[in-house]
Amino acid sequence: MIIPGFRFAAAMAGIKKAGIWDLALMAAEQPVAAAGVYTTNRVKAAPVLLTRQRLRSGQAQAILVNAGNANACTGDQGLIAARETTGEVAQLLKIPDRLVLPASTGVIGQPLPVGKIKAALPDLVANLKPEGLPEVARAIMTTDTRPKTASFQGKIGGQEFTLAGIAKGAGMIHPDMATLLVFVFTDAAATPQVLKSLLRSALPVSFNRITVDGDTSTNDTILLLASGKAGNSVIGEAGPEMAALGEALNQVMGDLARQVVADGEGARHVFRVEVRGATTTAAARKAAMTVALSPLVKTAMAGEDVNWGRIMAALGRSGARFDPERVDIAFGEAQVVKNGLGLGAAAEARAQQVIKSGAFTLNIDLNAGACADYYETCDYTEDYIRINADYRS
Amino acid sequence: MIIPGFRFAAAMAGIKKAGIWDLALMAAEQPVAAAGVYTTNRVKAAPVLLTRQRLRSGQAQAILVNAGNANACTGDQGLIAARETTGEVAQLLKIPDRLVLPASTGVIGQPLPVGKIKAALPDLVANLKPEGLPEVARAIMTTDTRPKTASFQGKIGGQEFTLAGIAKGAGMIHPDMATLLVFVFTDAAATPQVLKSLLRSALPVSFNRITVDGDTSTNDTILLLASGKAGNSVIGEAGPEMAALGEALNQVMGDLARQVVADGEGARHVFRVEVRGATTTAAARKAAMTVALSPLVKTAMAGEDVNWGRIMAALGRSGARFDPERVDIAFGEAQVVKNGLGLGAAAEARAQQVIKSGAFTLNIDLNAGACADYYETCDYTEDYIRINADYRS
Repeated sequence: MIIPGFRFAAAMAGIKKAGIWDLALMAAEQPVAAAGVYTTNRVKAAPVLLTRQRLRSGQAQAILVNAGNANACTGDQGLIAARETTGEVAQLLKIPDRLVLPASTGVIGQPLPVGKIKAALPDLVANLKPEGLPEVARAIMTTDTRPKTASFQGKIGGQEFTLAGIAKGAGMIHPDMATLLVFVFTDAAATPQVLKSLLRSALPVSFNRITVDGDTSTNDTILLLASGKAGNSVIGEAGPEMAALGEALNQVMGDLARQVVADGEGARHVFRVEVRGATTTAAARKAAMTVALSPLVKTAMAGEDVNWGRIMAALGRSGARFDPERVDIAFGEAQVVKNGLGLGAAAEARAQQVIKSGAFTLNIDLNAGACADYYETCDYTEDYIRINADYRS
Repeated sequence: MIIPGFRFAAAMAGIKKAGIWDLALMAAEQPVAAAGVYTTNRVKAAPVLLTRQRLRSGQAQAILVNAGNANACTGDQGLIAARETTGEVAQLLKIPDRLVLPASTGVIGQPLPVGKIKAALPDLVANLKPEGLPEVARAIMTTDTRPKTASFQGKIGGQEFTLAGIAKGAGMIHPDMATLLVFVFTDAAATPQVLKSLLRSALPVSFNRITVDGDTSTNDTILLLASGKAGNSVIGEAGPEMAALGEALNQVMGDLARQVVADGEGARHVFRVEVRGATTTAAARKAAMTVALSPLVKTAMAGEDVNWGRIMAALGRSGARFDPERVDIAFGEAQVVKNGLGLGAAAEARAQQVIKSGAFTLNIDLNAGACADYYETCDYTEDYIRINADYRS
C-alpha cells in the first residue's frame, strides 16, 4: 500500500504503556492539497481546533497523531502542547509550522505528555518510509482490536492512481462524523476545494451511516491529502475525473466505516438496518437510526433473539410517520412480520439462522412512501460494558 | 395501604410460568372518576387503544392487567382479545363493558392467551379485597426485581384522604411516558378533568424525568382513579384542594419513578443528572438527558470511574449552547471540573467515593444562563445486557 509522494512512520513514545505503538507521523515530500471534516461536538479537542485552523489554507505537509491521550478539555495548555509538538515536527522536517496537522485520541482531560512525544520525534522522522502506513494504522488504535486499512487503484485522466486510507475507532461512534480518526491519501492531483467537496459527499455513504453507541467524540477528524504525483491534470471542477476520484474515496471510506462497525466494542453481530417505504428520506433515516441505536434491539441481536417487537417499538418512537399495521420486517430474506403481524415460529426460526450468520441486513418496509435510508451497526454484548467500565483502570 | 372504595386481587393464570402471579384485577365499588396518560409510541398495544377509548368518558370501575404478554402488534385479534377478557370481567362484576380497562405488559407480538385469563377470572373476582394492592404490584412485575408501591395520607377540604399507587417497569424506560404500567388510587373526590390535569402536571416531576435505556414501550399507561369516599366536596377547579391532591400525586408518582430507576435492569448505581446554568429549560433538559442516556457515561458509572471527559463529550453533542471552557462538574459536592478543566487526581478520588455510595447527584453547571432541569437514571452493567439478550429464551 504505497501512495507516491507520502511516507509514514510509527513509534512507541510511552504515552500508553511501554511497548505499544502510540505515536505516528505521515508526511508528504512537499506541501500538498488537503481537506478535513471534524466532529460536530461542541466540545472540540485542541488538535481539532488547531488542524481546522491550519487547514483553512488548503495546504498541508505532515500529520502528527498520537493515541492514549485525546488532548481534549485541556484548555490553553492543550493548544500550547499541540503547537509545541507539531512545531518540533516542523523543525525536524524543515517546513513551516502551519503545514503540520495534529490529531489525538485517547483519554479526555489529561495533559498531553509533550516531553515524551518530543523525545520520540527524531527517530520518528528518521524512520519515515513509503510502506509505513499499516504501522500507522496500528499505532492509532485505542480499544480497536485490529487495524483498519483500505485502498483503491484506478485510472484518472489516463493516469494510474492510488487512494488509500486508515481509520481508528470502535467506541464513541455515531452519525455525523462517526469516527475518531481517518486519514486518506492519494497521489491524484486535485484542488483543496474539490477534496473538501468529495469528503463531504463521501460521509453519507460511510461514516455518517454507522453507529455503535450513539456517543460522538471530541476528536473526530477525517483528513484527505493529495500529492499529485499521479501526473493527472489537477482536478478543479466537476467532471469525469472528479467523479472517478469521488468513487474511489466513497469506496475506501465506506470500507473503513464498515470495518469500524465490525470492530464495534464487544460486537459479535454486525447488521445493516435498511428502511424502505418511508414518507421522506429524513424519516427513513430517523427510523433506521432509532432501530440501530436501540439498546433493546442491540441486546436482542447479541442474544440471537428474533425479538421483532422491539424493532416495532423502536420504529414507533422514531418520529417517522407510518401505519403499524402495514409494516413488513425481514432478517435478510427471512420475513417475520407482514402487515404488522408476526408470521410465527417457523419464520422466526429461519430469521434466527440469519442472525447466527453474524452479518446481515434487517429489512424494514414501512409501506408509507417511496423513500429509503440505512444505518450500519453492531450488537451490544457484555463485552461492550466490560470494555467501557474498565477503560481507564 | 387501604384506599376506601377500592378492592384488589392477583392470580396465577399461567400466562407466565406456573406458580407466578401474572394477572390482577382492581375494582371500585361503583363507577368512579378516572383519567389516563399513555405511550407516545406510534405503535400502541391493543389494551392501550381500548383503555384510551373507554376512558374518554372519564368514568371507570375496574382495571384488568396481565403480565407476560403485551398484546401489542397483535392486530384485530388483539383488540378482540382485550374486549373479550374485559367483557368477562364486566359480566362477573355485573357492570357495563365500557367501565373495565385493560392493561398488558410482556412480550410483543404473541396472541393473548384469552382462555387462560378467562379461566382465572371467577377466582380473581371472588378474591377482591381492600388490602390486595401489594399483591397486584407483585403480579405486574416482568423483569422488575421488586414490587413498587407508594402512598400518601393527608387532609383535603377538612377530610382525611389517601392516595396510593403501584408501578412496574425496569427496562424500556424513557422520557415522555417513562414507564410500563402505573396505577394510582385515591378516595378523594375530583372530576375526571381535574384528575387528567393533575396527572399531566405530575409527569414532569416523575416519569418524564427518568430514563433507563432510551427505549419507550408500546404499552406505557398511567391510570388514576378517584372513589370520592373521603367525603370532600368534589374538586372541580383550581384551588387549595386541587393543589393538595396534586402535591400528593406528585409525591407518590415521583417516589414510584425513583423506584423504577433504582430497579433499572442490572442497575448498581442510581444517579440524578442536574444541569444548571443553561440558556433555556429545554437546553438544560436536553443536556441532562443526553448525559443520562450516554452509554459511555453509564458504563463509566458501572465501573466507578470518574471519567468526566465522557460527560463533557455528551454535553457537547446534546445541542445545548454553552462554552466548554466555562463548564463546572461535581459528583455530589466533589467538584472535578472547573471552567472546563480537570481538577486532578485528588478531586477525582473524592468523586469516586461519591460514586461508590451507589446513589448520587451529578451536578453540571454550564454557566451559560439561568435555566435548570434534571434526569434520574442508572448505570449500564453487564447484567443489563444479560437480562435483555436472554429475555425471551
